[in-house]
Amino acid sequence: MQQEFASALLEGAVTELSRLPGIGRKTALRLALHILRADENAGIALGEAIINMRRGIRYCSVCHNISETEVCPVCSDIRRDRSTVCVVESVKDVMSIENTGQFSGVYHVLGGVISPMDGIGPDQLAIDSLVERVAAGGIDEIILALGATMEGETTNFYLFRRLAAFPDLKITQLARGVAVGNDLEYTDEITLGRSILNRTLFSDSIRR
Amino acid sequence: MQQEFASALLEGAVTELSRLPGIGRKTALRLALHILRADENAGIALGEAIINMRRGIRYCSVCHNISETEVCPVCSDIRRDRSTVCVVESVKDVMSIENTGQFSGVYHVLGGVISPMDGIGPDQLAIDSLVERVAAGGIDEIILALGATMEGETTNFYLFRRLAAFPDLKITQLARGVAVGNDLEYTDEITLGRSILNRTLFSDSIRR
Repeated sequence: MQQEFASALLEGAVTELSRLPGIGRKTALRLALHILRADENAGIALGEAIINMRRGIRYCSVCHNISETEVCPVCSDIRRDRSTVCVVESVKDVMSIENTGQFSGVYHVLGGVISPMDGIGPDQLAIDSLVERVAAGGIDEIILALGATMEGETTNFYLFRRLAAFPDLKITQLARGVAVGNDLEYTDEITLGRSILNRTLFSDSIRR
Repeated sequence: MQQEFASALLEGAVTELSRLPGIGRKTALRLALHILRADENAGIALGEAIINMRRGIRYCSVCHNISETEVCPVCSDIRRDRSTVCVVESVKDVMSIENTGQFSGVYHVLGGVISPMDGIGPDQLAIDSLVERVAAGGIDEIILALGATMEGETTNFYLFRRLAAFPDLKITQLARGVAVGNDLEYTDEITLGRSILNRTLFSDSIRR
């Protein structure tokens, strides 16, 4: 049921809020009324933060990560190893990997994975620009760091074929195995099988 | 875990979004990245709608409903019956009752209900201003339209005692009974008991 609003301004805010993913009109109304009840400056700060973010952030011309500058801080950091490129699905994955503190190379954000069900083909992803980066030289290794899903594996395979044109390029992917902290009981059999095949030296795990 | 962000602008927007009720940092990040992916104008429209709403909406000086003017459209509508005042907890309740199309009187928004558990006493609610409205004259009936909860009933009782000073004032409350569309099986016994005591003439229901 479409609710009638006492105020066009409230109606406007509810309409805009309800365009956000996972937020229906009911939740949008709850959020709008919360903003009205809270301090006036808090509401204005929220609106301005959204506008400033949308106006100020663009995508890095090299790796397509979000950036406030033409080239993002990772790509322009001279201490990073530019010969190793980690290919990820989204900006969020860059944040997750950066937070591990285990990677000192650079990134390439595809902007999605191949998914015929959702109508996403290779052309909609930043794959050509990845091939161009490799063709330009200086890259020794590509780490495929996509999700271990059907779509992720399809994309991995597609990238592997596209990059086969560069015979000296090392192409790796994230290790599949038992998640840290998980019991074997809760690990599916395919993952368990992979974790046996790809077993690592115990002494390696001690050294870390 | 506090995530590190690639951009201070993104961080700012996530922080402001996560102040909204029910939105944690993870959801806020998802919303922010959605805004970044979507059309630039959409993000700016959202920010501006929030700012315009927060700047443009105030509370009606008579009934405390939200309004873009000093006195809200309901209170200033000469066709409304000002002798009947419906007392509600929140602005949302005004919208709900307006949407029924069954009420032609005016409102009084308390801004909450008495709840010692949440530290809300009568002083934090717009109760004095209700008593003043009644004292000013011209009001024949007060409809207590608060929720059928412990807090709602407590507030009803408090208001009933405060308004006892006006012996000619009729004080009514919303009917309690079986919800329309509900089976008796799903109706609790207290409600069922009330619905028997307050049974209405069947012929009345046909006439409506």
